[in-house]
Amino acid sequence: MAEKEFDLITFGEIMLRLSPPNYERMTRGEIFDKRAGGSELNVASGVSLLGLRTGVISRLPANQLGTYIKNRIRFIGVSDDYLIYDESDDARLGIYYYENGAAPRKPSIIYDRKNSSITRISLDEIPEDVYSSTRMFHTSGITLALNKNTCEVTTEMIKRFKENGALISFDCNYRANLWSEEDARSAIKAIMPYVDILFVSEETSRRMMQKEGSLEDIMKSYTKDYPIKTVCTTQREVISPRKHNFTSTIYDAATDSFITEKPYNDIDVIDRIGSGDAYVSGVLYGLLKYNDAVKALEYGNATSSVKNTIPGDLPASDLREIDSIIKNHKSDKPGSELNR
Amino acid sequence: MAEKEFDLITFGEIMLRLSPPNYERMTRGEIFDKRAGGSELNVASGVSLLGLRTGVISRLPANQLGTYIKNRIRFIGVSDDYLIYDESDDARLGIYYYENGAAPRKPSIIYDRKNSSITRISLDEIPEDVYSSTRMFHTSGITLALNKNTCEVTTEMIKRFKENGALISFDCNYRANLWSEEDARSAIKAIMPYVDILFVSEETSRRMMQKEGSLEDIMKSYTKDYPIKTVCTTQREVISPRKHNFTSTIYDAATDSFITEKPYNDIDVIDRIGSGDAYVSGVLYGLLKYNDAVKALEYGNATSSVKNTIPGDLPASDLREIDSIIKNHKSDKPGSELNR
Amino acid sequence: MAEKEFDLITFGEIMLRLSPPNYERMTRGEIFDKRAGGSELNVASGVSLLGLRTGVISRLPANQLGTYIKNRIRFIGVSDDYLIYDESDDARLGIYYYENGAAPRKPSIIYDRKNSSITRISLDEIPEDVYSSTRMFHTSGITLALNKNTCEVTTEMIKRFKENGALISFDCNYRANLWSEEDARSAIKAIMPYVDILFVSEETSRRMMQKEGSLEDIMKSYTKDYPIKTVCTTQREVISPRKHNFTSTIYDAATDSFITEKPYNDIDVIDRIGSGDAYVSGVLYGLLKYNDAVKALEYGNATSSVKNTIPGDLPASDLREIDSIIKNHKSDKPGSELNR
Amino acid sequence: MAEKEFDLITFGEIMLRLSPPNYERMTRGEIFDKRAGGSELNVASGVSLLGLRTGVISRLPANQLGTYIKNRIRFIGVSDDYLIYDESDDARLGIYYYENGAAPRKPSIIYDRKNSSITRISLDEIPEDVYSSTRMFHTSGITLALNKNTCEVTTEMIKRFKENGALISFDCNYRANLWSEEDARSAIKAIMPYVDILFVSEETSRRMMQKEGSLEDIMKSYTKDYPIKTVCTTQREVISPRKHNFTSTIYDAATDSFITEKPYNDIDVIDRIGSGDAYVSGVLYGLLKYNDAVKALEYGNATSSVKNTIPGDLPASDLREIDSIIKNHKSDKPGSELNR
Amino acid sequence: MAEKEFDLITFGEIMLRLSPPNYERMTRGEIFDKRAGGSELNVASGVSLLGLRTGVISRLPANQLGTYIKNRIRFIGVSDDYLIYDESDDARLGIYYYENGAAPRKPSIIYDRKNSSITRISLDEIPEDVYSSTRMFHTSGITLALNKNTCEVTTEMIKRFKENGALISFDCNYRANLWSEEDARSAIKAIMPYVDILFVSEETSRRMMQKEGSLEDIMKSYTKDYPIKTVCTTQREVISPRKHNFTSTIYDAATDSFITEKPYNDIDVIDRIGSGDAYVSGVLYGLLKYNDAVKALEYGNATSSVKNTIPGDLPASDLREIDSIIKNHKSDKPGSELNR
Amino acid sequence: MAEKEFDLITFGEIMLRLSPPNYERMTRGEIFDKRAGGSELNVASGVSLLGLRTGVISRLPANQLGTYIKNRIRFIGVSDDYLIYDESDDARLGIYYYENGAAPRKPSIIYDRKNSSITRISLDEIPEDVYSSTRMFHTSGITLALNKNTCEVTTEMIKRFKENGALISFDCNYRANLWSEEDARSAIKAIMPYVDILFVSEETSRRMMQKEGSLEDIMKSYTKDYPIKTVCTTQREVISPRKHNFTSTIYDAATDSFITEKPYNDIDVIDRIGSGDAYVSGVLYGLLKYNDAVKALEYGNATSSVKNTIPGDLPASDLREIDSIIKNHKSDKPGSELNR
Repeated sequence: MAEKEFDLITFGEIMLRLSPPNYERMTRGEIFDKRAGGSELNVASGVSLLGLRTGVISRLPANQLGTYIKNRIRFIGVSDDYLIYDESDDARLGIYYYENGAAPRKPSIIYDRKNSSITRISLDEIPEDVYSSTRMFHTSGITLALNKNTCEVTTEMIKRFKENGALISFDCNYRANLWSEEDARSAIKAIMPYVDILFVSEETSRRMMQKEGSLEDIMKSYTKDYPIKTVCTTQREVISPRKHNFTSTIYDAATDSFITEKPYNDIDVIDRIGSGDAYVSGVLYGLLKYNDAVKALEYGNATSSVKNTIPGDLPASDLREIDSIIKNHKSDKPGSELNR
Repeated sequence: MAEKEFDLITFGEIMLRLSPPNYERMTRGEIFDKRAGGSELNVASGVSLLGLRTGVISRLPANQLGTYIKNRIRFIGVSDDYLIYDESDDARLGIYYYENGAAPRKPSIIYDRKNSSITRISLDEIPEDVYSSTRMFHTSGITLALNKNTCEVTTEMIKRFKENGALISFDCNYRANLWSEEDARSAIKAIMPYVDILFVSEETSRRMMQKEGSLEDIMKSYTKDYPIKTVCTTQREVISPRKHNFTSTIYDAATDSFITEKPYNDIDVIDRIGSGDAYVSGVLYGLLKYNDAVKALEYGNATSSVKNTIPGDLPASDLREIDSIIKNHKSDKPGSELNR
Repeated sequence: MAEKEFDLITFGEIMLRLSPPNYERMTRGEIFDKRAGGSELNVASGVSLLGLRTGVISRLPANQLGTYIKNRIRFIGVSDDYLIYDESDDARLGIYYYENGAAPRKPSIIYDRKNSSITRISLDEIPEDVYSSTRMFHTSGITLALNKNTCEVTTEMIKRFKENGALISFDCNYRANLWSEEDARSAIKAIMPYVDILFVSEETSRRMMQKEGSLEDIMKSYTKDYPIKTVCTTQREVISPRKHNFTSTIYDAATDSFITEKPYNDIDVIDRIGSGDAYVSGVLYGLLKYNDAVKALEYGNATSSVKNTIPGDLPASDLREIDSIIKNHKSDKPGSELNR
Repeated sequence: MAEKEFDLITFGEIMLRLSPPNYERMTRGEIFDKRAGGSELNVASGVSLLGLRTGVISRLPANQLGTYIKNRIRFIGVSDDYLIYDESDDARLGIYYYENGAAPRKPSIIYDRKNSSITRISLDEIPEDVYSSTRMFHTSGITLALNKNTCEVTTEMIKRFKENGALISFDCNYRANLWSEEDARSAIKAIMPYVDILFVSEETSRRMMQKEGSLEDIMKSYTKDYPIKTVCTTQREVISPRKHNFTSTIYDAATDSFITEKPYNDIDVIDRIGSGDAYVSGVLYGLLKYNDAVKALEYGNATSSVKNTIPGDLPASDLREIDSIIKNHKSDKPGSELNR
Repeated sequence: MAEKEFDLITFGEIMLRLSPPNYERMTRGEIFDKRAGGSELNVASGVSLLGLRTGVISRLPANQLGTYIKNRIRFIGVSDDYLIYDESDDARLGIYYYENGAAPRKPSIIYDRKNSSITRISLDEIPEDVYSSTRMFHTSGITLALNKNTCEVTTEMIKRFKENGALISFDCNYRANLWSEEDARSAIKAIMPYVDILFVSEETSRRMMQKEGSLEDIMKSYTKDYPIKTVCTTQREVISPRKHNFTSTIYDAATDSFITEKPYNDIDVIDRIGSGDAYVSGVLYGLLKYNDAVKALEYGNATSSVKNTIPGDLPASDLREIDSIIKNHKSDKPGSELNR
Repeated sequence: MAEKEFDLITFGEIMLRLSPPNYERMTRGEIFDKRAGGSELNVASGVSLLGLRTGVISRLPANQLGTYIKNRIRFIGVSDDYLIYDESDDARLGIYYYENGAAPRKPSIIYDRKNSSITRISLDEIPEDVYSSTRMFHTSGITLALNKNTCEVTTEMIKRFKENGALISFDCNYRANLWSEEDARSAIKAIMPYVDILFVSEETSRRMMQKEGSLEDIMKSYTKDYPIKTVCTTQREVISPRKHNFTSTIYDAATDSFITEKPYNDIDVIDRIGSGDAYVSGVLYGLLKYNDAVKALEYGNATSSVKNTIPGDLPASDLREIDSIIKNHKSDKPGSELNR
């Protein structure tokens, strides 16, 4: 399997993110910070920064904004080989507006992603060679939720990647503003039989997936219901919009074991968006590189924690930084205060 | 008629405008300047800055972006009494991206305005009292072009304002990316019988409106075909994206006279967008305040010329500034170099 | 009373605020953030954002800076109908410079407000109709303190508003750099007979107003000495310049009851200025809308707490945000982390 | 004389200058560029940058803003030894607001300098040793115009410097917004007997000084009426706010000769303020260093021309740059395009 | 030859460029714009933007600054496959500081590139496969000039590329601050026998290369002395630092013809740096894509002209923009003012 | 001794510091904040801000960057009399890049200071009069570490200052990236006989200086081994990159006493760099002004604590601010929240 061109291919929408700087509000101010983001791009980026070969499948308008997104994707080291350009009059880039929070003000988001170019993607546009080019494929519930078309296309893609020997990673990422719990449950159940690695929050398991019992029971149940090998659930404690604690639990079906570690406490949250995707990227890196759930957990927790300190959706930490953060976290001693 | 609450009400889409600062490109950079704009808002704003009472009818999403636009409208002195808020899940604010030019690079625009909240406006949402509240109503071909619904609503509104004694001002503002010449011609012909003041470029007259002959013949022909009283055509000479000359011609049907003046030369173009709307605002001010085509021409040429020096769509010149620019333009002497 | 045009009219100085961004110091740096502010404008703004109709009486220089302030007032939804423009050669806009703090560095302020246009305001300039146009009038000790003229004008205005049936709200807001304790005490005692709602800090009660006893005794004493109906005192605990706790107590004379609630803890202070005024606005909203001291307290505490997270003097929270903050504060559960 | 500590001491008000960046307007925007400036500081700065020893006498508030100004003065290499700090409650720093222009929009200025700390300066505050410390003293009509007190103090200072052997340089710099032509004429005539080097524009000579005849007649007349040795008059041609031509004429009484040179044409005006002061600095440098009117003219024209390309009041060109500009100006060949 | 992986590989130093924004000076200000640049990267970038496959060989420090440069290279679409990372303690990224000009102030540059990582490059570090991977190799006299080592490595690389069938493009780009005319002449003569396409300015031909006669004679002479096929010389007329005219001449040895076209006049120069490299990129694109000297000239002139309007070293124009600029340049009619 | 011109002269490298703003990373972003810094300049600056006369000896490139540094030195009130300008082709300004941290991300630094102009300083360049001009001389282990030449020059300078009666202050400031522990130990031992005031961290004492025993034993041992009078060791507790506690201990040999005080807790760290140098400046101020170890400790702890809240290397607190911070720290009561 090592000879495949890519370690990870992801599929999903990539958006323009616009945010007021310096705690200004969306209703005021004269500047927006301009960034690229999207759950599946975020995941590919994190894995790429750690040193593996990744690419992203998406559909972008064939205009300057599409070019901007492509440039950003390349900037972060993700392949743009599988980007599809929408030449139609209806081509548009999805947008979201993000405003930071500070206690007691919560961060807030406005989505303007309807009818974006990716919602009209067709299987025919995706080159056949992609399915056999990668060791792993990842997508999320957001992509299923965009519209009926992306749901169908994604489901078919998952099958094709699976057939070609890729591992399937899936992040439920349930978003109530995109679809109902019923629709989500039905669509996600349809792809569960193909999934190898599952990311699902406790709340989503209980509400949308209608699971009951202890968290451990729930996590284990997915591997009983489906041939899922790894189930990952994060534990985020929001002390304030600017201070979080974070850890996670992984259930490894092969060894029937639950893995966790002490939380990263008092994380200085500069930008919370994308920290969940950074978690996925750390876990996938651990699995792809070491095929080891402990490593996966350590990388996942470290990449997620540090992402909170990075402005924008996209992570910005290379392997050296992550290894150093893991080492500090496991150490009893404070370590040097400064990387000189 | 002087007792009406407003001197001018306009109707049209208001958009979020995003532009890279300092000659940066849309495909690069990390900041967008955030502004409000839209042809009919620009017109109302210009008239408001000159001291008359104006309002704008539009439909905005009931979220922070709609609030941002409302705040900007109030900032410039236009009434927000007739804004309608779209509470639906489909609510969205139209966007356009604008990049400045420098010879030999042209400015460029990307529109992302489809399915914006205004496209689903209904006559029922517009309070009945608006029709009798104003001395003049203004809209443009852009509003007709947005979609079939806005075309129908606008046409009906024009009739109602006319019935209630308002003067009707209309700017053809033909945009090839919004509709075909055939559709535009048909829709505009349907409203021509109600129009009192017409703004139309020579090129639009010749191509879209299929007029022939000299410019003077063409301008006069509108007043023969329809009960139009005033026809205005601008002459812009683009020396470079940063240097323009500008004047205009007005045909006054009542006196059967053509009015023009020497051009404003070597205008330093900081931001060209909205200078056409600023022209309309100056002309309408001249007509509303003085009912005088010469005044209208002088105000129109001055407001348009100076708008080119103002960043963003919206004008920013009060009556004192415009009067001083007109005086300088008519003077042979250079005048003081600085307003101290 | 519900038919009056305004719910609240305030009177006071409006200043230009200049602050170095990003924790830079006044003695260095090359940029000032430019904002509008002033205690009574801040109060009107907060009430306006919550949905009531407000206006502000002030006197501004008839130049571009006065226009800037007027634009900002309109931006936030407060009426500019009662602004008076100073055409004299002495016209000037008061300024204050504000530098943020970070422990152990305190925030600091320099005032440059002497001889500003408002100090020469005359009763004759204020249109007679304002006195009967509003349900409530609010001003503060700052306005009394500006100079002898504003003290006299304000006192007379309070009488006229009272005569016309408006409720009178007064915030002591004692500033040692503007006047002596003796002068303040004398001037404030002269208006106390007209006041319905009194805002006064414990420290001001004890020192400037020479009150003794428990805080409850003091608060109650005002309603015995004068026909005051409601007395409000805030409790702010400054953990550091960037972290505050906040709550308040209201004494409601009608029911002879003291109302308070658990504090908002660990507020992330982005900009502390105006949070006291935001408190006043929340309380006045609660009284104007619900005539209920419990509501007043809840709105006051919420508007004040969240103002600390907003850059600039002026608040920026609408009713939906405040209601959501109150709900979270009263809830035992953390609630969603993000407003999606 | 060469052993004196300073080559030039100037006296005048130093202000905070606030300007909107990027052609934004004073009535809008959220940022001010923060700069120090003032005619006589500008002159001292230019001479200091060229390599001579200069100082400035002024009076500043004893607060952070005064410190900011002091820091800026030191930054540019001018001595702060003779700054006087105003510890009074009335201490304030004069301010002016400057907005850039672009054809047909003129630049504009608002002054807020009344009652600034310098207006209450007393001769007793100025150390006696300053009068014998310098080869030359320079001030301008602005300082005379501030108020009666500065007029009297300045007149006395001129006498004392003269008595101690310093050359006296005076720039008429008539400002109609500060005083009447009559007051100016009377005050300036009182100091003329002490002046060695006079800067006066043709317009000021004709209107305020009531001179008649050709420019050459007028310039010469000053040296007949008073023991003035050098008279300098600039010729600025304002093509547009962003494009000027510039040269000047010097009359040297000793040789009874008029000196001029071909203008600097098509100057790219980034910031016009202070270019007149830069001219004075170049001329004074030429006289102080070479005692040569031709050198004075060349340096004056070069320093003034290049100042127009520098943001802010203060010049920023050292001797190497000015010498290179003079050399290019005199050369027929284009020279290298870039200083590498 | 079409099956080679790359159309163009270039070799040279890539630097960090630091420039004060908004006409500020290097001696002042508090911000530097941060950009990547370097003659050979600029060339590869221009060709990549037009749609061909390019890569760059360089040596960067193995730290965050090297990563920054790598990210920027990828952003613009150039392959980073042949970047070499310097892990030594001496690793450093070359820097240059650039300050913009405005008449009569010239732009200026300070280099701090000595001992940068590329100066210690070794042939052994360059993978052998690169020599057969590309249709064309380009470098410049700057790379030869860096130090003796880069001169030797470059010369050997040129031989190896030539042996493997690549076309050799060379831009003399003589920099007097890097080496003497004698050293340059000697080193360049040593590689001339391998060069296919030569870029050389008239001034460099006359002074450094000691050529005499008409420009046409000189250009032709290179093809007689060496087996050079194409010689390109640009004609830039610097009206002011902000206004240039530009065209060029190409001598095509195969057809013994000189090709030129009317200049691009009145170019609005936003940033002149890299416009020479952009010219090279346009010419190479024309040769690589069409093997046609006329196309090469048209693309070269257009890419160079428009680069002057782009901030930073790197170009930012795709094929659609360049084709549109060429079309406008050849047209007699003004064309649309705006790309809508 | 009081008649000496300077209270303190320091010697060391001054660098350009470049940092990404707003928690951006070095590997991304488009802006660098531009600052001046260097341990010994930082010390002189702190002492100067508190009101004593200081100067700095350093060697700078004779270009615009050297001028920038000179301007900044003057800005902060330190004398530039002893700056030496490097006119050679090799002249360069050392640079360091600094990136801020946020838990769990550590701040990080990249140095690019090799071969900077100061490394080629010669004793002959330093004017003889400097040695007798000052009451105290300060330098640090960084200056010794730069290269062999600076080590020799510094050692000789220390001897000369000592001979001329200056007190010698030395901060070990061991930097592992500049030299080995062996080299450092050897060089520092060579200067210890001349040192009066020693700053050394506990870690450096134990590792590099190979001291053993309790901290008190170690501190005392220096005064036994050498004629050192005062030994200072700081205690910094890094709670997170944005939250520190800080105090220090001073051993006063004359009285054989250890002095300390309760720590400054919960310091809001905006920029940690230079806080150690600020400590030195406070201690030296206490010794120079009061010759009192208790005052030295109080000033040292206060200046260091507050420096953490100031962006950039250089401190920005005058005596009034420091005195107020000391007073608050010693007080039990909270004090006013705001400096009004």
